[in-house]
Amino acid sequence: METILHLLPLTAQQQEAFRAAAPDAEHLFLPTNDRRGATDIPQDWRERTTILLGFVPPKDLKTFPNLKWVQSWNAGVDPYLVPGVLPEGVALTCAAGAYGPAVSEHMLAMLLSIYKLLPGYRDLQREHTWGNWAGLGPVRSLRGETVLVGGTGDISRHFARLCRALGAETVWGLHRSDKPVEDFDRTFPLSEIDTLLPQADVVALALPHTPETAGLMDRRRLLLMKPDAVLLNAGRGSAVDCDALAQVLTEGHLLGAGMDVTSPEPLPADHPLWDAPRALITPHSAGGYNHMQVTLDNIAALFLDNLNRFLSGQPLRSRMK
Amino acid sequence: METILHLLPLTAQQQEAFRAAAPDAEHLFLPTNDRRGATDIPQDWRERTTILLGFVPPKDLKTFPNLKWVQSWNAGVDPYLVPGVLPEGVALTCAAGAYGPAVSEHMLAMLLSIYKLLPGYRDLQREHTWGNWAGLGPVRSLRGETVLVGGTGDISRHFARLCRALGAETVWGLHRSDKPVEDFDRTFPLSEIDTLLPQADVVALALPHTPETAGLMDRRRLLLMKPDAVLLNAGRGSAVDCDALAQVLTEGHLLGAGMDVTSPEPLPADHPLWDAPRALITPHSAGGYNHMQVTLDNIAALFLDNLNRFLSGQPLRSRMK
Repeated sequence: METILHLLPLTAQQQEAFRAAAPDAEHLFLPTNDRRGATDIPQDWRERTTILLGFVPPKDLKTFPNLKWVQSWNAGVDPYLVPGVLPEGVALTCAAGAYGPAVSEHMLAMLLSIYKLLPGYRDLQREHTWGNWAGLGPVRSLRGETVLVGGTGDISRHFARLCRALGAETVWGLHRSDKPVEDFDRTFPLSEIDTLLPQADVVALALPHTPETAGLMDRRRLLLMKPDAVLLNAGRGSAVDCDALAQVLTEGHLLGAGMDVTSPEPLPADHPLWDAPRALITPHSAGGYNHMQVTLDNIAALFLDNLNRFLSGQPLRSRMK
Repeated sequence: METILHLLPLTAQQQEAFRAAAPDAEHLFLPTNDRRGATDIPQDWRERTTILLGFVPPKDLKTFPNLKWVQSWNAGVDPYLVPGVLPEGVALTCAAGAYGPAVSEHMLAMLLSIYKLLPGYRDLQREHTWGNWAGLGPVRSLRGETVLVGGTGDISRHFARLCRALGAETVWGLHRSDKPVEDFDRTFPLSEIDTLLPQADVVALALPHTPETAGLMDRRRLLLMKPDAVLLNAGRGSAVDCDALAQVLTEGHLLGAGMDVTSPEPLPADHPLWDAPRALITPHSAGGYNHMQVTLDNIAALFLDNLNRFLSGQPLRSRMK
């Protein structure tokens, strides 16, 4: 018999759906709102759990001696893939596909905030100044622009669609090959990024952390971007060299940078990016699993589907190990 | 012979188009970037001008003794409609229809900024704090929501389309009647606002200043809105009682308010709205005529069309007097 530990803050209806899917299993519900993972799990629950739906701090995985499968609520599971973290023989699946609406909307909010000069107005508001709007310069619009999206997964496709709705003329996707992907005018392999960066008005990254993406946007590539382009990152912080970014912003390069993820993360209090001109920083909050109902619903649906697969011996979706 | 004074910052190509449309007229070009209107116009230009394309401070209209027609670059021309401002017999047209893209995008930027908690993150960034994102509360999304738009003109219709693209389920328009308007699920006369306010997640105003709209959103109507609704105003400041708004925000009512226009305007430095919680203020900058190329292009096209009409004796579009 399986014991399933549910850490998502599920609705009563969702709990019922899980019980119905696995009526013979023991269901333990511990709604967790700390994205860093539940830590207040009773010792005997840890011992009984065979299926973990949610997230615990990586070092805690070892405290679950009978674990068979972890379904993470995160889209990126790189902390669990560090050698030695996930006990031998335990299956790992991620929640890729659940975060498209939340993260893409956050990216658009950051972009529009930069385009419409809202950070500058926010500062004027703090000073009670009915400001010299002309002094802040012209506003920008996606109308007719070219957007280069790093990644062509769920988040990237959602973002591509939003850009199109706001009038973007060309939306390119970067991924492992040039295989066409819906919602993009064209896709290119990551190796062609150097020829694409000088053509894009917006470079929006939703890339996983891999050897190919780590350090991708170094000083040289940041300088390949148009001087008035905007950089967004809502994938993994390692894709952008944040020291180099702070420096090019200080030098006057780029219209702005909206960073929901940074490197290192959390960003240290003395990091130059905090005060770099035209930088907008949010603390890896775009995809908070409990921040937007549709995200929670997507994750729950994905868990349920995978649970059915697990119980009937079918291959799991989004299996990472 | 007509003498046309052009105050818009036109491209060379646009200037040429105006010359071609009125080859017999004298064209005076004085590109003006001050939205309050050109003041540095030579006296003899004022005396010769018969057609004014742009905007001068209302009190200066009297300094144009031979004026026949003013084509304002503003969508709202209420300052020119104050009795005694526009000399007797002078035609007045407005630039309704030019500002849809710019103002609707600004409204969306304000809304997404509130929905995605960006002002709070901006404050955390100033403190170099990789914040407790959970502490700022859940984010919101237009997905599945109901939007009530005050006005059904160009700006309102653009905003309605953007909301739909972001997943809004229901978009209502308020105008003079219940005559259907494209882009809205349904329209209602302004007199029905009290029954609609309690149902809307977003109330977005792009209304002109009229006796019917002045003071529309008083304390009573603000309190009719859902406690977690958002109010946006990018029409005329008079539609919202800003003292009452500051008070209800302070009392905890509404998720936020994005105000590009206020009453009074400019907002005095000691007005309580500046520091009201969850208020986002921009200084009537959404529709800066020279802020976004598409706005300038729209106005120039509208001017050109009306100039052709004027010269051939046809009725002018968007005639206000």
